[in-house]
Parts: sequence; C-alpha cells; structure tokens
Amino acid sequence: MKDQNSLQEAFRQVAYPVIGHGKSNLQILMDSLKDMDGNIVSDRYGKGQVIEEFQEKIADYLGKETAVFFPSGTMAQQIALRIWCDERGINKVAYHPLCHLEIHEQDGLKELHKIETLLLADENRIIQLEDVCGIKGDVACLLLELPQRELGGKSPDFHTLELISKYCLEKGIKLHLDGARLFEALPYYQKSASEICALFDSVYVSFYKGIGGIAGAILAGDNLFTEKSKIWKRRYGGDLISLYPYIVSANYYFNQRINKMTTYYEGAKELAAQINNCPLVNTEPSQPVSNMFHIYFGEPREIIEPILVEVYEATGVGITGNLIDKNGKCCCEVWIGDRYEHIPKEKLEAAFQMLGEKLQEYTFL
Amino acid sequence: MKDQNSLQEAFRQVAYPVIGHGKSNLQILMDSLKDMDGNIVSDRYGKGQVIEEFQEKIADYLGKETAVFFPSGTMAQQIALRIWCDERGINKVAYHPLCHLEIHEQDGLKELHKIETLLLADENRIIQLEDVCGIKGDVACLLLELPQRELGGKSPDFHTLELISKYCLEKGIKLHLDGARLFEALPYYQKSASEICALFDSVYVSFYKGIGGIAGAILAGDNLFTEKSKIWKRRYGGDLISLYPYIVSANYYFNQRINKMTTYYEGAKELAAQINNCPLVNTEPSQPVSNMFHIYFGEPREIIEPILVEVYEATGVGITGNLIDKNGKCCCEVWIGDRYEHIPKEKLEAAFQMLGEKLQEYTFL
Repeated sequence: MKDQNSLQEAFRQVAYPVIGHGKSNLQILMDSLKDMDGNIVSDRYGKGQVIEEFQEKIADYLGKETAVFFPSGTMAQQIALRIWCDERGINKVAYHPLCHLEIHEQDGLKELHKIETLLLADENRIIQLEDVCGIKGDVACLLLELPQRELGGKSPDFHTLELISKYCLEKGIKLHLDGARLFEALPYYQKSASEICALFDSVYVSFYKGIGGIAGAILAGDNLFTEKSKIWKRRYGGDLISLYPYIVSANYYFNQRINKMTTYYEGAKELAAQINNCPLVNTEPSQPVSNMFHIYFGEPREIIEPILVEVYEATGVGITGNLIDKNGKCCCEVWIGDRYEHIPKEKLEAAFQMLGEKLQEYTFL
Repeated sequence: MKDQNSLQEAFRQVAYPVIGHGKSNLQILMDSLKDMDGNIVSDRYGKGQVIEEFQEKIADYLGKETAVFFPSGTMAQQIALRIWCDERGINKVAYHPLCHLEIHEQDGLKELHKIETLLLADENRIIQLEDVCGIKGDVACLLLELPQRELGGKSPDFHTLELISKYCLEKGIKLHLDGARLFEALPYYQKSASEICALFDSVYVSFYKGIGGIAGAILAGDNLFTEKSKIWKRRYGGDLISLYPYIVSANYYFNQRINKMTTYYEGAKELAAQINNCPLVNTEPSQPVSNMFHIYFGEPREIIEPILVEVYEATGVGITGNLIDKNGKCCCEVWIGDRYEHIPKEKLEAAFQMLGEKLQEYTFL
C-alpha cells in the first residue's frame, strides 16, 4: 500500500496541480523586485515611503482610517484583541473553536496576555446571530473569521453580518474581522471590502494566501486603535528595522491578483461541482463561497491515497498532496489560484472521470 | 542658526560619510539575490533547507548546539529570558539600565511576561563582577550586552567575563548574551565567537548591524532551550510562513563581512584618535573596543551643529547626521563599516584639521 509520502511525491510530479498559484520558491521574491528601483530607501522602524504608502493604500481599500503592516497575522490579531480587552476593561474575548488563535498559535493569546476565551458555535458550523445573542457575561470583543478556513471557507451571509454587527454595537462588544482570506470572499458577497469592513471595528488581512505574497499582514482600524497597535508591535519585536521585502512583494502581488478573485471563485465552484459528481466524495461547502473548499472522502486515507496516486500518474492532474485523517475517513483542503485556469479542461475531465470510476469500483468491492 | 534638519541634510549631501556600509535601500536585498537560484524552495514555518542550513552554520560559528532564526532580536531576547525564568521558577532577571529591553522595547518583557528586572551598574559604566556578586535575592538570568551599544561599545575584558560566568554557574543564574554586535567585538577580544559564547547559556546575534543585512536575528543554545524558543516564536507570531528574504540576505552579508570586522575595528581606533586630537571633543571609550564609539562634544548642539555643517560642506566628509542633546552638551554615535576604508586619508585629515580649528576658534570667542 502506498504511504502518505508517495501521495506527496506523486502530487509533486504532476503536470497539473489544481491548488494554488505555483511553486513557493525564491523566484516569488525575485519577480516582485525585478522592476523596482534599487535606490528606493528602506523603511525604518515603521517609517518611510515604502511602508507608509502601502499602509495608506490598504487602509483606503478596506475603508479604514489607518492601517499598520505586521510581519504576521498571529501577531496582529493577538494585539487587536489585547487592545480591545484593555479598552473595555474586560479580559475575555469570543471566537469560534476552530479560530486560528485557538488551534494554531500555541496559545499565544493566553500565554502572553492571560485573556480568557469564550468559544461560540461548534466545530461543524460557523457562528450565527443566535450564538452571539446567546453570549452570557461580558466579552470585550468578538472575532469573526470570514471566510472560515477550517470549515472550508463557509461564511455567514451579509445580512447576518449586519445583524451581528448591530448587536455588538448595541452591547458594546468590539467586532474584529479575521480577514485572512477576505479578498477571496468578496466575489461571493458581491460587496466591496470597505462595505464589509464597515461592519467591524478592526480588520486583519493577509498577503500570502489568495494574494500570493511571501508573508505579512495588515491590521486596520481607527487612528487610536492603530497607534496602540504600533506600541504592541514594538513590544512583540514585530517593529523590524525594515519590513520592505514583505511589503514590496505584498504590493506587487496585490496589484497582480486582487482583480482575479472572481476567477478563482468561479474556478472553485466549477471544480467542486466536478468533485461532487464522483461517488464517495463531497465538498464542504457543497458550493464554495470563496476560492477554497474542503473535500471529504467517504473512506479512510489508506483506501483513498492509492486511488489518488493512480489518478495523478495516469492523468497528470493532482488535487492534493496531503490527506488528513478525520473520523475514520479522510479529507483535504483545496484552494484555487493562478494554476487552475491554465489546466486544459479535457485533462480535468479525464481526471475526474477516472477518479469517479475508481471510487465507483471501490464501492462494488 | 542652522537647525537639526540642516545637519541631516548636509550629512546626506557629503561625498564621504564615515558611518556605516552604505545607503539603506532596496539594492541591499537585490544584491543578496542576484546570484541565487530562483528554484530554491521557500522555508515553511521554520522548516526547509534555506533556514535549517543557515541555523546550523551560525550554531557552529557560535559553538552552540542549535540555533533558531528570528525576525528580530527584541523577540528572541524576551523569549530567552522567559524560558530561563520558567526553568528556574524565578520571575526576575538582571541587566544593565541601558539594556535594549529596558529602553527600546516599550516594556515588552514586563507587559507580555510580567517579569521583574533588577538593574545592575549605572548609566555611566558597564556591569562588573562586583555588581553580579552583589545581587541580592534570586534572579533567573543575567543578560550581558557585549559590546554595550549605549556606552559606546564598552565591554568587560575576557577575564571578567570568565569570572562572571563562573559565578553565575555556581549560583545557578543563567547567563544570556545580548550579542547584537558580538561579531564586531571579536577583534578586540582576540577570541573566536565560540570561545566567548561558551561562557553563556544562550546567545543572540544580529545580522543588520556590522553584518549589514536587512533584519533578523539568531538565538542559540542547547537543544532543549531552542526547542522551547520555537514554541514561543510561534506564540509571538514570529514563526512566519517564510523568513527567507532575511535569511538569504543575512547569509550573503555574513559571508561578505564576517572577516572584515578587524578592518572596521582598526578604522574605529584610527578615527577616534583623530577626533580626540581636536579640542572640545572626546570619544567614549577613548580607545574603541569594537567598530563603534560615541563622540561627546563639550558644547550644546546649537553650537556644534553649524560647525559640523561648515566642515561637511567644505571638506565633503560627514561624521553624523544626528546630534543628541546630553547634559546641556551633545553627542553622537559612530560605527565603522565598509565606507570608512574608501575615504581618501587626506580628506579625513583635512576634515579633522578644520573641525579642530573651528572648535579651537570657538574656545577663544
């Protein structure tokens, strides 16, 4: 039986990987510098044209007063929640159990700030208005992740967002947007970023997911908020003498891809439909609401991996290099970037035809 | 009377600035990439050849078991002190009142970790053995900055370091090296980095001072220590998906400049001697022990600035763009890099001759 490494290896060999923009290598940085003037002065501890212009550009795009560039979203979001806790004098925030801060940050929020957390909704569904209205006791801030990565990018509809925002405003609960993939969700909402961000007190966005930069984040809000965030950025050691390698690349790929989010979204819907046509497999959400979704296979990883390897090797189309065990079955994440549109349609059809047949055969064993 | 901005402007215009390696601009990054293969795979959350090889290289250079690349020294050092506090079960560390953590980090150590600090020695002198032996009560860790930037790079002699290290070992006090400019101090000690680092439990070094990279730091120690530091690095949001822009440039300039530290040191001694020949001015230390020193002028900034501007404009040699008020007089920092050796000796002599004459004239007014 083929093991996990053989799936990774087979995925690495395919001519047509469906995920992402391309290989993650030094060329990403080189490309973003190729037309830059070497005489442009480095940013210095948050000052200088290269950082200030980008911060203003993204603040405008998000419809917020000011914005601060951070090395990472982890740092930016912990700081946002800390500021709101201090402002409200309440040491507790609410978010989803699959929030990045809860599962991917080694409990930084709790270890560094002693902030308590209230978990809303559960691991199978996103936060809805009822969850927010049901909050008992005081919380300083509610964090909403939009779209929610760990649930395949599921997102509340815009009207729900408006109601949650209104409720939080009435109750004095600050509303923070984890917009790691906000750009990718805009085509679904058919709203501008600023229309969505207007519902939130503070917003974080990322530049290495749909945008495809190297790393880095923006935290945006009103002046008072962002000025406080700069003090915390220094406390964290995030106020690097120069952040321009991340800023230049963020700007380059933002310009290149911000208008391609609809293409990625349409690609995700098309691909999900093809997958949902196969037996023993379905996507979550069944119709994507961003450029991403999860695939759930109805059998364990040990069954699915060799089937995928066979499909990859026969058709040159690869869906994932990494299956995750889940409840005795398995799943994976798919996100659509530049690569998908360049795959010949007949190649995709052949791959999903074969995948469907292989899974069908398996159901008859 | 010329103001501060006119000094900055005059310094910006000189043909021969004595400080540093060169202009801080995007070319620094571009140069470090020019011979790199674009196919080199990005590091990913601390894994991958590009980060692992550099970490191993610097661990070897420092004579430590392992090393971890951090976005900043601020982050690396707070984490080092936190780890030692946790290990000792003591919530207090000792360092100098002009320690970076005390004056440049918005109290990050105290705000994020509630760690108490004991200040040793005073703002006019470095920490000596007696200060360490005089510590009352328990401290988890002593931080020594070597050379001490805010005191013009002054450093204890090697024998004193050995005695402090021995004392700390006996008392169970962990010894951490703030080696932001350690490379620059090696020619004075006539020791290898590993001979000095052997006296310390943990070591931080920087890649954008004497090395002249863009940003980034290494924290080194034994495996147990560095593994813990990786967990904290994630908590801080310093475990970026990719750090390679800083690593590639750190490695490039490390290779280029690590063997030039003696040249910089000799330059600093030569320049300091010329300055000390002028009236109304002296350097601290009087003979540099690294590539840096401070200049203390015996008159207020308002007096000295127009004199410097005149010298810069007449001779094309610039010493500083930034005078700092101090006790009714003024001072500045000088550090020697690549630029100094390319200044024609007669230009330097003319500049210091004129500076001497101008200061002399002033004493007769």
